[in-house]
Amino acid sequence: MSKPQIFKTPSEMNAWSKAALRDGHAVGLVPTMGALHDGHRSLIERARTENDRIVVSVFVNPTQFGPNEDFHNYPRTFDKDLKVCAATNVDALFAPETKDMYGAHARTWVDVGGLSDTLCGLSRPGHFRGVCTVVAKLFNIVRPDRAYFGRKDAQQLRILQAMTRDLNFGIEIVPCDIVREKDGVALSSRNKHLSPEQRKQARSLSRALEHCRQRVAAGERDAMKLVGEMTEAIQKQPDAEIDYIQMVDADTLKELEKLKGSVLVALAVNIGKTRLIDNMELNV
Amino acid sequence: MSKPQIFKTPSEMNAWSKAALRDGHAVGLVPTMGALHDGHRSLIERARTENDRIVVSVFVNPTQFGPNEDFHNYPRTFDKDLKVCAATNVDALFAPETKDMYGAHARTWVDVGGLSDTLCGLSRPGHFRGVCTVVAKLFNIVRPDRAYFGRKDAQQLRILQAMTRDLNFGIEIVPCDIVREKDGVALSSRNKHLSPEQRKQARSLSRALEHCRQRVAAGERDAMKLVGEMTEAIQKQPDAEIDYIQMVDADTLKELEKLKGSVLVALAVNIGKTRLIDNMELNV
Repeated sequence: MSKPQIFKTPSEMNAWSKAALRDGHAVGLVPTMGALHDGHRSLIERARTENDRIVVSVFVNPTQFGPNEDFHNYPRTFDKDLKVCAATNVDALFAPETKDMYGAHARTWVDVGGLSDTLCGLSRPGHFRGVCTVVAKLFNIVRPDRAYFGRKDAQQLRILQAMTRDLNFGIEIVPCDIVREKDGVALSSRNKHLSPEQRKQARSLSRALEHCRQRVAAGERDAMKLVGEMTEAIQKQPDAEIDYIQMVDADTLKELEKLKGSVLVALAVNIGKTRLIDNMELNV
Repeated sequence: MSKPQIFKTPSEMNAWSKAALRDGHAVGLVPTMGALHDGHRSLIERARTENDRIVVSVFVNPTQFGPNEDFHNYPRTFDKDLKVCAATNVDALFAPETKDMYGAHARTWVDVGGLSDTLCGLSRPGHFRGVCTVVAKLFNIVRPDRAYFGRKDAQQLRILQAMTRDLNFGIEIVPCDIVREKDGVALSSRNKHLSPEQRKQARSLSRALEHCRQRVAAGERDAMKLVGEMTEAIQKQPDAEIDYIQMVDADTLKELEKLKGSVLVALAVNIGKTRLIDNMELNV
């Protein structure tokens, strides 16, 4: 256990990375918005096994939040995050302020077409543009060999894979499995916002996915039928409001009528004011 | 004089660049669409004085041409370009094919807002999005310390400066002065398309700029008046059709009514079917 070096500005972070590169070190980047939980920890531990140096970035990126979303309310727990990074032997913690990431005249956007206008992209217009832009910036600042992203953000993962390939970043995107609580709820920084009663209701997401998995294992292939059953189960929760439940092709994110091949079952549900997402991949 | 190494794929080019970087060499990139002339040559020579290794890219980028523009007709003179690169001691010539730069599923765009929707951006929608996207790709493939661009493409230069800053590329953009023929015509690969008679008419662009410079030196500050005089002079040419003549703030590209501070006088004129641009900067 050793405290990471903390960098507050892109130029300081970049200087460290350049030196690591010159010394022939492989660098792994774990981009986060902080409020680190065991899901992030699993990304860091995976990165630790595959690289010589690990950078964790903690930046609540304003450009990926809509005007009515929870940017100001997003959990910020820097001291705790620092402890997690120390416990996992992170080498460098990049924690810039907004003003150092976005100058007054910032006007450049990175956009991935086709994959961004479905699922979360529909209810969060501009969200993935903000994600791509900040990740492109982080990639240039840190110049990692590998970058680690969770499968919980399934659409984000695919969009960032496309961006990395299309813009020739030369960075390996490493997808990491969803980490769940014992009762099946996927770890999320936003789970903090749930009341104890809402936390119970949140189980309905992973349970609906599990129900779907069993139904598919038993031979069901009709997407509308499966979505209907999942909808019914989740709607029983008094505070649940479904944003979407969809069965899409895992590569193209195009909606499926009949389940076939590599399928992503994805859902987004508001529990009270807290928006939760979850998903699973099936090979049908 | 030594023949450059030629690379046809992004991965080959990138491997060379990574090795140069590891060896501690400073790399200069001169991105071009080929049909190299003395303007390009001046960029290469400037790069030669400031870097250990020089990369010239030759790629006629389809995504920066509109459907009715001259992509198919754009001059391609690879053997001659190779000689220019050999004569100027270029180390690496990157000449990819379209299929190796844009995969079948390419869907990512880099866009600079605010600076792209004026001057050439108005008559060439999508042009600067294509330029930014391909330059971002080249930057990632070559990872140069410095990149060299001509001032003739004044709007492109400012847009790429903004992109490089906003996305934290950490690359120095080096603007290089316009190179002109003896009669004042700015060098351009497209000049090849002009008939001898049209080539004479092309002089009207730089002459109008020179007229403007003298009028401003004599105290004129009224943009509309100056544009009117330039318009009148150019319109006398039988094959000339003006796209725009504008006086804008050299940083923001916002149109000016009264000339003040750092001013960019920019114009685009079709001579027959050939679109020519030219400009000058004035400190008023």
